[in-house]
Amino acid sequence: MNRVVATALPDIPLVEPGSDLGELTLVGLEKAGIELQNQDILVFASKVFSKAEGRYFDLSEIRPSPAAREIAAACDKDPRLVELILAESNQVLRIRPGLIVVEHRLGFVCANAGIDHSNATSDEETVLLLPTDPDRSARRLLRTVAEATGADVAIIINDSHGRAWRQGTVGIAIGVAGMSPLTDRGGDPDIFGRTLQATLLGTADEIAAGASLLQGGADERSPIVHLRGVSYEPSSGKVSDLLRPLETDMFR
Amino acid sequence: MNRVVATALPDIPLVEPGSDLGELTLVGLEKAGIELQNQDILVFASKVFSKAEGRYFDLSEIRPSPAAREIAAACDKDPRLVELILAESNQVLRIRPGLIVVEHRLGFVCANAGIDHSNATSDEETVLLLPTDPDRSARRLLRTVAEATGADVAIIINDSHGRAWRQGTVGIAIGVAGMSPLTDRGGDPDIFGRTLQATLLGTADEIAAGASLLQGGADERSPIVHLRGVSYEPSSGKVSDLLRPLETDMFR
Repeated sequence: MNRVVATALPDIPLVEPGSDLGELTLVGLEKAGIELQNQDILVFASKVFSKAEGRYFDLSEIRPSPAAREIAAACDKDPRLVELILAESNQVLRIRPGLIVVEHRLGFVCANAGIDHSNATSDEETVLLLPTDPDRSARRLLRTVAEATGADVAIIINDSHGRAWRQGTVGIAIGVAGMSPLTDRGGDPDIFGRTLQATLLGTADEIAAGASLLQGGADERSPIVHLRGVSYEPSSGKVSDLLRPLETDMFR
Repeated sequence: MNRVVATALPDIPLVEPGSDLGELTLVGLEKAGIELQNQDILVFASKVFSKAEGRYFDLSEIRPSPAAREIAAACDKDPRLVELILAESNQVLRIRPGLIVVEHRLGFVCANAGIDHSNATSDEETVLLLPTDPDRSARRLLRTVAEATGADVAIIINDSHGRAWRQGTVGIAIGVAGMSPLTDRGGDPDIFGRTLQATLLGTADEIAAGASLLQGGADERSPIVHLRGVSYEPSSGKVSDLLRPLETDMFR
């Protein structure tokens, strides 16, 4: 029977700069009574990587540029925060009260460059940026897990993002290792034996969204989710495979 | 321990016009050995509702309008199919080769009004439209299931959609019953006791995406997925709750 079991690893301690995520994961798996198998998946809330990598910035140390001040006035945000958003972005797409939609330096379109006060620290002047290179972070953790367990698994780093035309955030993949984030079913015959068209599935994003149900949004008490039973193609995929090429983008 | 178990109901027969989806579901649950409990969720691929509702159209009976012919020439599609796409849409947003992005009459933005040849029938001249009123279809099935089992569950009808800036389709909700499709965590304190901001979670879409992993995209052999362990707010929600109001839409 086709079944997926997703388990939030229990009792994960608060992550701090320098925390060993590999060790936390292995201990969490043991507490959950899970022995990793090939084709399992581990999904991590991006915040634990941000924190382990020490991606904190102190707003009191930021000198906003004139451009940041101008945008800050237009959207009623802290100019120092806007300075950080600009530094983390390739391009500003839209500015609205409380919101700057950008192309992040990692290539995806998102709100406020993914920079967040929420749960960063107890200090209102400290903000947390996305991990420096989530694909690389995922690959590194994958090697650690593989060495410790011998299992060939996939790792996804997810983050909660808004959508152009829909309300509510959903988990999407911002880093991936050990799998192709897309599944191309274009060549498969459908149930009538015809070749399917237009069936590139955003598998890593669907996994990221599903795992997010157990991570509770901004809550970080369940940042690591183990999944078993998901069909995916093992490969050295990267998250940029999920980004729509500019030449097919109709909505910037 | 926080755990979600998603099960594709086995041996669901091919759905035809007039098929009793309530009966198919109850038999499928029994075959899976699942006794429904309160707070369970059933996710249905939209195609089974389209088929049960007989939403087939024969292209050979469609007379395309001059407007449909003009758009068809611009995007290299069958003018009769374009006529149907226009009839199913409130507004055309973009036209590209092979693609018409519309606001569907149900309110969401999607490609080609969700009209598909794939798996519709073995006849190349027949296409399948989305269900007439997915929320109503979901509510009706919810009543049937509640009467048969006594369980208070939620039902989501999902469909695979593309995204503005990302490759690959993901499952999203186009019909919902028995739950609020959004989860508002705005009032909750974060782990440092501060009030969270901007945490409206697209829960129904995350469930739709996660379940889609077991439905296999255009494949319809596993159209019904049962989920247990997902936290959601029981209510009489509707899918339009998930649609971004036009006044906050920055990307049409």
